[in-house]
This record gives sequence, structure tokens and C-alpha cells, in this order.
Amino acid sequence: MGSKTVTFVRPTLRFSSGLPSPGRFGKSAILIHDRAISRHLKGFSAWVAKFPAAYGVEGGEALKDLNAFPAHMTRILALADRFSAKDLTIVVAGGGSVGDFGGFVASILKRGVQLVQIPSTWLSAIDSAHGGKTALNLGTVKNQIGTYYSAREVHLVRSVLLAQGPDRIRDALGELAKIALIDGGRRWAGLAKGNDTGAALLWKWLPEAIDAKYRVVVRDPYEQKRIRQVLNLGHTLGHILEAHYRLSHGVAVAQGLLFAVEWSRKKRLLSETAYEPVAELLYGRCGFRSLAGTPGFRPIPLRRFLALARSDKKRFSATRVTFIFLRKPGQTRLENVEIEAFAAEARAQGWLA
Amino acid sequence: MGSKTVTFVRPTLRFSSGLPSPGRFGKSAILIHDRAISRHLKGFSAWVAKFPAAYGVEGGEALKDLNAFPAHMTRILALADRFSAKDLTIVVAGGGSVGDFGGFVASILKRGVQLVQIPSTWLSAIDSAHGGKTALNLGTVKNQIGTYYSAREVHLVRSVLLAQGPDRIRDALGELAKIALIDGGRRWAGLAKGNDTGAALLWKWLPEAIDAKYRVVVRDPYEQKRIRQVLNLGHTLGHILEAHYRLSHGVAVAQGLLFAVEWSRKKRLLSETAYEPVAELLYGRCGFRSLAGTPGFRPIPLRRFLALARSDKKRFSATRVTFIFLRKPGQTRLENVEIEAFAAEARAQGWLA
Repeated sequence: MGSKTVTFVRPTLRFSSGLPSPGRFGKSAILIHDRAISRHLKGFSAWVAKFPAAYGVEGGEALKDLNAFPAHMTRILALADRFSAKDLTIVVAGGGSVGDFGGFVASILKRGVQLVQIPSTWLSAIDSAHGGKTALNLGTVKNQIGTYYSAREVHLVRSVLLAQGPDRIRDALGELAKIALIDGGRRWAGLAKGNDTGAALLWKWLPEAIDAKYRVVVRDPYEQKRIRQVLNLGHTLGHILEAHYRLSHGVAVAQGLLFAVEWSRKKRLLSETAYEPVAELLYGRCGFRSLAGTPGFRPIPLRRFLALARSDKKRFSATRVTFIFLRKPGQTRLENVEIEAFAAEARAQGWLA
Repeated sequence: MGSKTVTFVRPTLRFSSGLPSPGRFGKSAILIHDRAISRHLKGFSAWVAKFPAAYGVEGGEALKDLNAFPAHMTRILALADRFSAKDLTIVVAGGGSVGDFGGFVASILKRGVQLVQIPSTWLSAIDSAHGGKTALNLGTVKNQIGTYYSAREVHLVRSVLLAQGPDRIRDALGELAKIALIDGGRRWAGLAKGNDTGAALLWKWLPEAIDAKYRVVVRDPYEQKRIRQVLNLGHTLGHILEAHYRLSHGVAVAQGLLFAVEWSRKKRLLSETAYEPVAELLYGRCGFRSLAGTPGFRPIPLRRFLALARSDKKRFSATRVTFIFLRKPGQTRLENVEIEAFAAEARAQGWLA
């Protein structure tokens, strides 16, 4: 972050059953929204129409393409031109890609305007809408451009989240389990024991999961120490699976969690006593199963695995990746492991040919 | 700035007679440099070649065009790919446009990397390289996109500054006089009295001018209060002249200063006693003369003047601009004046048809 000394301020969280009144964001609010929401949620278009200005986009990684950015920004600047720069507020309603894009826009429009996030997917509600990371992609290389820019408010709206198809619920379970394992402690005891499922489970645990993420983020908001890196639990393999099998992020993270937990157990970093409740949460409560070895499964060629591991932008060096092991819920261990050792374990767990 | 609480950290200033050793910026330094410097400064190309990576650009407003940005960023990311993100440093050698562009790149590359500025023009050395503003343009609308991102170091290199043509000296005199009037006090007594001219004058007063700017910037680095706005002294008319007559920024600001001082005097905000040394500095020491009414001068049509005044992105409202008056050196007064009153004064001083 250059020579900036920056204090991260947590956004205000607002949980509500329905959409917030557009009026609360002032007369200079521009809504950036995923057009897909209107297709699922009755009344959303009418809500959009109440904003002083609105910009509809199609969510997805293509939205974050740097090459498409000038055209988007030109249209958003034309909308912003009607308002005084001082009170400008960008309200973003959408999933992870729309949040990354809209947050980036807010951070560079007139050198930064107010930002409000209304995540529309469980995955963004539980994870990406929090912590102030914004991002664009360059071709297939993700998130190489971006800013740290915290929202002023994040609205968690039940009707918006419930409007998603049930397949999006699975996407968030991996991140929920991840943050529960990282955070640990008695507050998570109810998670493994409960019998809620699906949307009810996610809505119930959303406040706890978000709080747990902020507990990590505030200690290292700009990733200058290695503290925030623990949030990468399950992601080192997860990102490789996401890229190779084109899995959704959430599903890939769930697979990566199983991998990290099993490797931690094998290395005896995670004791058998500590392993038991972790396995109960992942295999039992969440119902995760390793895809490696299932019918129709095709392992990743070694060469491809190594190339993907080496292109990990969070890799430690040319030959090592920082892997997050679990010692017990609430306690992780970062190790810079040789990519060869990482590949050997992936082979042992059935991922490599 | 959304919900960020940010403390501005002054960069380290380094005054030197020759270029700093490229090695001091580490093994992951990318130099962004104005190719024009090599055409003026012997040995510059050899210095460039010593950087781990270098990206040459042509300075000027076209460099800051948002539509050209993806192509630039793609090439810079390809260079950055060789290095670990953690130690990446962007070193920028160039004038105002290159500094704005390179600073913006550093602020969004991998969510922000180290930044070092080596201003190559007197104008950037005295003004734009300091204060952390970065910017891109959208078509002819300037600086609508950008970040606040402070450099870690700013190097003021005598040989680089001396390599410019003497016509660039005039560009910086307006900003020097401006900051002297804003800052005031005994430390500037020597400026009006001295008999240095040209580059010697600028080099001598550079540390004092930079210090004076930081004294303002640190009190309002993100322009949230109205404190930093005093740096706009002379710029309200200046920007209009710059756009209409295509004057250089420095020359336009000098004209704007004369206008602001004469208007302040007419309104009796600036007493006759206080006016005298100010006039001595501007008309005497700096040799500024109003262009309005000189042979060949063509006044600005009223309609055009009003359109330019209304498109001022720092305007206070649809009908008013914030004008910076001078009460005495070291004391300014901000007034939100009607654009009609501003136009009437411009007519009185000979600028309008």
C-alpha cells in the first residue's frame, strides 16, 4: 500500500427481510445492478426505477474484463455527471462479480465515492461483499487489478437471497464451513449440531460468519501481514479445481477444504481428537464428498496441475505455495510447501493422473 | 472516501544532482518513463536499461485516456508477472501526465504496490508529483477517474529538471507564486527580493514550495474538508483559459492568479497595503502580465465562458463556483460566487467579449 497508513472501518451491516428504500441512499445515488435479479425477484424492477440513476449489467467474470471497462465507465460517468461529486453514492446489487466491479468503480470514480453493497448471492453475502477487496480481470488472469475500498453499508436482504435458485445454496456452504473452521470456538457449536438445511441454515449463520470474517480482516485489512491469508484455507487446491474443472467457486472451495483437512490429519497437525468434529461438520452436516475417484472423474494431468499451481498469484515463490493447514478449529498453520510436495499429496488424494 | 479513515503519510523527499541508482528500488522495480527524457538527457537511456523492467510512454493528456488504458495495463501486467507482488515497486519518471498515469497504475496494480515519483518537469516537481492525486481522463473531461495514493519517495533530480527547455520554466512560475501567496509568512520574504532567475530560482525555492504544499495537503489529504481547496487559487479562471486558449497549465494559472488578486483588491478583501508586495511578486519578480487586451487578443464569447464555468468539476452548484480570494499572503477566503458575477468580473478585466 505504498506509504499509506490506513485504518479499516467495518461497514454497517443491515439485515432485513425486504429491500431497503432507495430514498435512504440520497438524491445522488447510482444503482449498479445485476439484471438477472429482476428475472427472479418480483418487484425488483420497480425498486430499481426508484433510484435517481441505475446501470444494469450482466453478472459473471466477463463483467470484470479490463478491456470492457472503459465502455462501462464512460456510461457510468455520464450518469454521475448529473450529480454533485460530493454526495455521489454507488449502490451495488449483485453477486461476487458485480460487487467486485461496482466496488472498483466506486473506488476510482472521482477519486472515490460512497459505496453500499447489497449482495444478491449467498456466496457474496457470506464472503466477497465483506472485506473491501475490489477487482477486475485481465483476460483469464483474475483479480490482478483492484483496490481495497470498504463499503459504508452492506445490506443483507432475505427476499433477495431467497430469490436465488437452490443450487446457489451449495456454493455458500463451503465458505460457511471454512470460516467456522478458521474461527472456531463455542459460538460454532450449534452449527454442527443443528438440523436446519439450505437457505434457513445460511440465513441463520450469516451474521456469525460475517462477524468471523471481519475479526480476521480488521487485523490485516491490506494483506500486509500474513494474518488475512488464513482466509485462503481450502483455496490453494480450490482455485486449481475451479480453473481446471470449471467448478463454481463454492464447490471448489468445499473440495479444497476436504483436501486441506485430510492433509493436515495425515501430517498429524490435526490430531484424531480434533479431526472428529471437523469431519462431522464437513462430511456430515455439509454433506461434502471428494469428487476425486467418483464415477466419470478424470484426474488432472501433472503438467497441468503444476502450471496452475505456479500461476497462483498468491504463491510464495517460484517453487513454493503457502498452504493453510488446520491444527484444530480456530487454529491454522501456514507453511510454504514445495509445489512438488503439494502435487504428491494431490496425487495421494486421487486428484492427479 | 467511503468509510475509510486514512492518515496521509508524507513521502520522503530526496534532492540530488543526478539520477538515483536503479538498484535502490529493488529487484522488482518497474520504471514507467517518458521517452522524451532520453531525447533531452544524456545517459538517461543507459539508466533506464539498468531497471529490472521498463515501460516507455509518450507524455501528454492522451496517455491518460481511459480508452487507451487496458492496452497499457496489459503490457505493464506482463512485466509485473516476472516479479513477486509483494516487493513490486513502480518508479515513475516524467511530467504531470506521466505521474498521474503511473500513480494510478501503482494504486490499482495488484491492489496497490510501492510508488516512487521522479518528476521530470518543473511543474510536476513543484506541484503534481506531491499530494497523492492520480488521474485518468475520459475523452476531454479531465481527471474524472483516479485515486488518492501517496508515493513512498519523491526524487527531485537537478540534472533531469535542467534538461528541459527553458520554456518549461515559465510553466512552474505560476505555481511557485501561487503557493508562496497561499503560504505567506517570512520564509517567502527572500523570494520577492532575490535576483535569481529561471532554473536557479526554481531549484532554490523548490524545497520551500513543496513543504508549503504538504502543509496544506496533510490537513485535508482526501479533500473532505475545504482546506485543500485553497490550492485552487488562480485555477478557477485558469482552467477556463487553459481550455479555451489551449494555454499550458502553468501559464493559465499565472493569468488566473492575476485575475484573483485584482478581483480580491477590487472587493477590498485585499487591502492596498497587502496588495503592494503581492503585485511586486507577480508583476515584478515573476514578470506576469495579463494577456487580456494585448495585441491580437481575442476575448472569450460569454456563452463559451459560461459553459466552461459550469462544467468546472469543482463547481459548488449548478449556478455557483467556489472562488478563492486572497486577503493577504498566507490568508485566503473561499466564496461561493454566482457564475454571473464571475463572468461580470471576467468582462471587467477584459477577458469577455
